[in-house]
Amino acid sequence: MWAQLAPVGRDGGTGGYRRYAWTGADADCRTWFQEQAEARGLRHETDRNGNQWAWLGDPAAGDAIVTGSHLDSVPDGGAFDGPLGVVSAFAALDELRRRGTTFTKPFAIANFGDEEGARFGLACVGSRLAAGQLTKEQAYELRDGNGVSLPAAMEAAGYDPAVIGPDPARLAGIGAFVELHVEQGRALDLTGDAVGIASAIWPHGRWRFDFRGEANHAGTTRLVDRRDPMLTYAETVLAARREAELAGAVATFGKISVEPNGVNAIPSLVRGWLDSRAADQATLDTVVAAIEQAAKDRAQADGVDLAVARESFTPVVEFGHALRDEIRDLLGGRVPLLGTGAGHDAGILSGSIPTAMLFVRNPTGVSHSPAESAAEDDCVAGVLALADVLEGLACR
Amino acid sequence: MWAQLAPVGRDGGTGGYRRYAWTGADADCRTWFQEQAEARGLRHETDRNGNQWAWLGDPAAGDAIVTGSHLDSVPDGGAFDGPLGVVSAFAALDELRRRGTTFTKPFAIANFGDEEGARFGLACVGSRLAAGQLTKEQAYELRDGNGVSLPAAMEAAGYDPAVIGPDPARLAGIGAFVELHVEQGRALDLTGDAVGIASAIWPHGRWRFDFRGEANHAGTTRLVDRRDPMLTYAETVLAARREAELAGAVATFGKISVEPNGVNAIPSLVRGWLDSRAADQATLDTVVAAIEQAAKDRAQADGVDLAVARESFTPVVEFGHALRDEIRDLLGGRVPLLGTGAGHDAGILSGSIPTAMLFVRNPTGVSHSPAESAAEDDCVAGVLALADVLEGLACR
Repeated sequence: MWAQLAPVGRDGGTGGYRRYAWTGADADCRTWFQEQAEARGLRHETDRNGNQWAWLGDPAAGDAIVTGSHLDSVPDGGAFDGPLGVVSAFAALDELRRRGTTFTKPFAIANFGDEEGARFGLACVGSRLAAGQLTKEQAYELRDGNGVSLPAAMEAAGYDPAVIGPDPARLAGIGAFVELHVEQGRALDLTGDAVGIASAIWPHGRWRFDFRGEANHAGTTRLVDRRDPMLTYAETVLAARREAELAGAVATFGKISVEPNGVNAIPSLVRGWLDSRAADQATLDTVVAAIEQAAKDRAQADGVDLAVARESFTPVVEFGHALRDEIRDLLGGRVPLLGTGAGHDAGILSGSIPTAMLFVRNPTGVSHSPAESAAEDDCVAGVLALADVLEGLACR
Repeated sequence: MWAQLAPVGRDGGTGGYRRYAWTGADADCRTWFQEQAEARGLRHETDRNGNQWAWLGDPAAGDAIVTGSHLDSVPDGGAFDGPLGVVSAFAALDELRRRGTTFTKPFAIANFGDEEGARFGLACVGSRLAAGQLTKEQAYELRDGNGVSLPAAMEAAGYDPAVIGPDPARLAGIGAFVELHVEQGRALDLTGDAVGIASAIWPHGRWRFDFRGEANHAGTTRLVDRRDPMLTYAETVLAARREAELAGAVATFGKISVEPNGVNAIPSLVRGWLDSRAADQATLDTVVAAIEQAAKDRAQADGVDLAVARESFTPVVEFGHALRDEIRDLLGGRVPLLGTGAGHDAGILSGSIPTAMLFVRNPTGVSHSPAESAAEDDCVAGVLALADVLEGLACR
């Protein structure tokens, strides 16, 4: 399976993947998914929101067990983030058939559309639409970097954007969703385990800091006459690291935009984006408030105007303890529980149905990069763990 | 004169000027210059390097007195940087004629082409070519942001790029060049004088700092596992300010480029450009070395690779003392001498012929911005001072 999927949407230069929603690479991934489903005698369908499903049995009874993940990628992403969960789902089904197991409940493998949000800027579009967390009107306003709207992109790919929206009947048919994913940190590497179970997804948000100063000549303006917003930005970047360290959270300034961005010009505007996440809401609030205060103090000293706007926010997701504990028991009880700072379709769906996540060890912790990796032994361990979980949930 | 020139190349939105070399706005400025010359009975010519001249008399004797400046602008520049020197030159000639003065030496007003380098990235192209400080081959390699080469742009504007190059015969005809310019700092505002004389142009350079770390997920990568080059950049920005303050120099990070520049991605590369200038070479060397050392120390702590490249450098320009003192005497001796951090055509030409500069007070010090200003009284004082200087140099 890997051999077929590996070259799809891969950039020859960086070795990274560029599988963006509703592009040719995305269509190739979808074709691969359908072929894998049909080769195993599963009934393939694409739902109204562009999510793919491969069914065994009829979900009408409301107790279907579903696994899967996503096939799209961030710009220059790695091979595992997303695809590992889909490939492992098909491999776990193969393993269960090798074991001669019979399904007692309806079962499906899913590929959720546009999880990374690389093209339209919003993550988990497919699952958000299905769960009613993104309205049709909001989705219609999404635009990619070339100004192409989401409905126009869907239409160009041969899908009908008029029918997108909440899909409660479909979710009502599902008793549990289990997503396997490569870990995006090094917690399992540090505990020495191949597989772990998610406890919660940290609350996280994005804040835009606009530092406004005064454009001026870099050669002739005395230091005391300057209102240089780059200085305020720099102090704020260092404050973010300091405050995150103190609180055991994470805080990152990874995106910046500068005007006029000339070598011999003091900037008039530096715009920086803060991404911050923490284990709980109170900690996150404390960290962001402290960063804002540090920025405000320095802005005053620099004669710079500061405006901070929260651009997005996702509250904490606690995966249901009942399903989590059941899965832990199925795996023999000695599997570590991990919090995670990344969002997932399982997090979105946890508001509608019981969900859980399995993580596979990532020895370097590198994620969203071509250097992302997982050992073959650990991938096999992940497939066997997923098979054990599915056997326990769907075959008894 | 101002009324005719004011609307040329002005942006309706920002109120700033966009008069870039060999564009339509540049052509309009050139037409204005020719009309002003012809209206005063001066002989107009454009030299091989695209510099305009308005002549009174024959420069063959080698003792011609020339004044002038440039008409092009930086992006969203102010009204005074450049044009004040050209407009004041014509106004000073009018003043001398009002006084009934007779020229005893050949006299010219010049408009040097592409002084700001806004389009092709290199400043003072017209004077550099004439003085042999830029070869034809080097000039042919210059490209604008759209990939248009300098010779192609000249050709499109109706000029022959095949004939550009050193023009020693023309420079040999000139006994002295005096450039009047709006001040780009607040020194005259602080001394309370309307007009000053340049002592020297500070040595200055541009250095590119490449901070290379490791792209990673901003939500899931533990702080201790990060190699975040934005932190190293931020520390270096603050170090630049600190070191410049200590040394009485200036240092600015005004331009930055980040990869991948995503809100939820730790950057793999932060590229920052340092512009630094000081009153003398030793001080500038000390400042830049200290900034580099601070960057290196922090890079090691952050696990970031640092490479520093000097992209351009201009040594100190000391204006000749003989001409400077003569001008000071002509103005009654009580005129302050100022160093400046900005480059000028007069600085380029000082390597070939005696040059001097007059500065007119800029009450805010703001430069390279639509907010650049000079009071009408001070502009008149500048014209009268220039007339006094020209009368002393060319009419005795």
